[in-house]
Amino acid sequence: MTLDDLYTPCLIVDKKKLTNNIAKMRAQASKLGVTLRPHVKTAKSVPVALMCAGGAVGPITVSTLREAEYFADAGFKDIIYAVSMVPAKLDRAKDIIDRGVDLKMIVDSAEIAKQISDAGAKYHRVYKIMVEIDVDMHRAGLSPDAPELIDVARALHDGAGTELAGVLTHAGESYHCKTKKEMIAAAEAERTSITRAADNIRAAGLPCEIVSCGSTPTATFAKDLTGVTELRAGVFVFNDLFQAGLGVCDKDDIALSVLTTVISHKKNQNRIITDAGGMALSKDHSTRGTDFDCGYGLIADMSGHIIGNLYVLGANQEHGLITSQDGSKIDFHRFPIGSKLRILPNHACMTAAAFDQYNIIDGTDEITETWQRCNGW
Amino acid sequence: MTLDDLYTPCLIVDKKKLTNNIAKMRAQASKLGVTLRPHVKTAKSVPVALMCAGGAVGPITVSTLREAEYFADAGFKDIIYAVSMVPAKLDRAKDIIDRGVDLKMIVDSAEIAKQISDAGAKYHRVYKIMVEIDVDMHRAGLSPDAPELIDVARALHDGAGTELAGVLTHAGESYHCKTKKEMIAAAEAERTSITRAADNIRAAGLPCEIVSCGSTPTATFAKDLTGVTELRAGVFVFNDLFQAGLGVCDKDDIALSVLTTVISHKKNQNRIITDAGGMALSKDHSTRGTDFDCGYGLIADMSGHIIGNLYVLGANQEHGLITSQDGSKIDFHRFPIGSKLRILPNHACMTAAAFDQYNIIDGTDEITETWQRCNGW
Repeated sequence: MTLDDLYTPCLIVDKKKLTNNIAKMRAQASKLGVTLRPHVKTAKSVPVALMCAGGAVGPITVSTLREAEYFADAGFKDIIYAVSMVPAKLDRAKDIIDRGVDLKMIVDSAEIAKQISDAGAKYHRVYKIMVEIDVDMHRAGLSPDAPELIDVARALHDGAGTELAGVLTHAGESYHCKTKKEMIAAAEAERTSITRAADNIRAAGLPCEIVSCGSTPTATFAKDLTGVTELRAGVFVFNDLFQAGLGVCDKDDIALSVLTTVISHKKNQNRIITDAGGMALSKDHSTRGTDFDCGYGLIADMSGHIIGNLYVLGANQEHGLITSQDGSKIDFHRFPIGSKLRILPNHACMTAAAFDQYNIIDGTDEITETWQRCNGW
Repeated sequence: MTLDDLYTPCLIVDKKKLTNNIAKMRAQASKLGVTLRPHVKTAKSVPVALMCAGGAVGPITVSTLREAEYFADAGFKDIIYAVSMVPAKLDRAKDIIDRGVDLKMIVDSAEIAKQISDAGAKYHRVYKIMVEIDVDMHRAGLSPDAPELIDVARALHDGAGTELAGVLTHAGESYHCKTKKEMIAAAEAERTSITRAADNIRAAGLPCEIVSCGSTPTATFAKDLTGVTELRAGVFVFNDLFQAGLGVCDKDDIALSVLTTVISHKKNQNRIITDAGGMALSKDHSTRGTDFDCGYGLIADMSGHIIGNLYVLGANQEHGLITSQDGSKIDFHRFPIGSKLRILPNHACMTAAAFDQYNIIDGTDEITETWQRCNGW
């Protein structure tokens, strides 16, 4: 089976690019002396997670308990669920732990820490919990110097049903950096903040074994991770246009694309219409407003070569509207109705989520493998 | 099982609102003397499609062949696939037709019409094809007065493997109307354009049985559909914030919401964080830039009452960031970590697509039914 035989829209993964992206991040973690704990939320696929540990079952980060269950089914044993835990979700966590998984969860509230401990004690379990740290006002977590940090850490350490496993942060504001220099600075700020949080916990006489940080930009540009034990990053496996716009990767490093079919020509509007709309590409518009605006995606030919000047201007539910970025006339003869194109995504995590599987190519147009992914919660 | 027992994020459908939304559109079609052919792309769920024909199997519109297959499995026999057909997809269409489905497809190119006819002749099939008409420069289709319209119609009529089944349009630009008056005008413009296309085809000595038009705004506000045979609309079943912003419905008519759990308080940023992020809500931001900006959604309590002044400011992959629209202080005691909220979506079609099923409520917090939906292609 080749690309031309696939029903569109569908996902294509270029295995050479995927392999190269993963090798670079593995080399970076190795150089900095930290464990790479990939965030599998991007690909949500066992073969990709295995590649991240050189073909082995390694430590992973998940964004949903569904992912934890799916990867546990495949034999993954060391998992951090990196979204704030609430007591109502403990039943599923308990089942995962009872299958032999070393599952670690995160909280940023002493009250919730206590509730989780009470639940653990009731079920004769000791849940491993990390404290989420906020290093850049991006999302959840406690500031490294907040007095509540010690309250939460102590509640976890003293609780009969919990064990304080460490600290975790995600420097998500690095997505707003404009230059490589700013990303290097964001990485160093992430390191100093997370290690200060760990030091503050230890200074209070409490343990802090795992010191976990990361985002694809800061993981890529970190120069020193002294005091950090592990590095998390997700989108690096595929990369995407948003990352290319940041300078984290080159457009040619993007391993994921949506295969689509030209279904209509609107010559009076200088538009090609394809069958990859908002459902297939997602409505992520994250490059908009930047000087790297790619609309809903850039266009490549079947070989993966980017066709300069074309982009997805609009995305209705099942229609993608392609036009030229500078208003120049499209040569419609190059793109007959029925021919196929590949669309590079703004945001790989969101785009991949519409699909159940990846079609893998490796140097030719032959589909060498199909890999499943898990969606939902 | 009640709302409080559900694992979040998940979809909730208020059956009373759904029933009322459908009753209104059925009454509108009846009043105007046209067949209602709901576009099932929004709910993608058999029970909802059945409600649209008063509990019966009625005519439907689909946006993917996967939907056509799913609804064929449930006994639906009269289906229009309303995305431009290409020859490479005919194999699946043929299988659907061979199951006894009266499947109609659309094209806007004489060359493709000929290719489909050749394929039909080869497989001893006569494919029913409609010509897509462009009434407002929104997407695909031919202008009602374009000479190519007659070329395509004639190719379909004369082709050994095709039958000219009619004309179809979607007045998608009605989504950009600002007032009820503009929507009434858009509906009338849609009617005059599609009936002119039909008249032009008939004037050329060709048949044009089906004259199909619609969008939720034009279907809602049409005053007269003389010459039109059927009305299509999709999102009306659930409605959403974008439609409420247009004035097509009231916010209290929105039947779909995402149930979510509060997972963190960021008091220093006046934010509540929930477990419904971009994956659960979609990245659709279609109310942005309007005077009805709802961020990524408005917030309701467990009873479905909208909590004034709160909205989803940001949507990371699995985190929703809620704050107040006017900067006023959130009363965090009202929304403890672990408590649940319901989020009204900007765009119901996109939001529902992340989920496999709907949890139905009908006047209380009890889940009375769960309905499956079909995703993908």
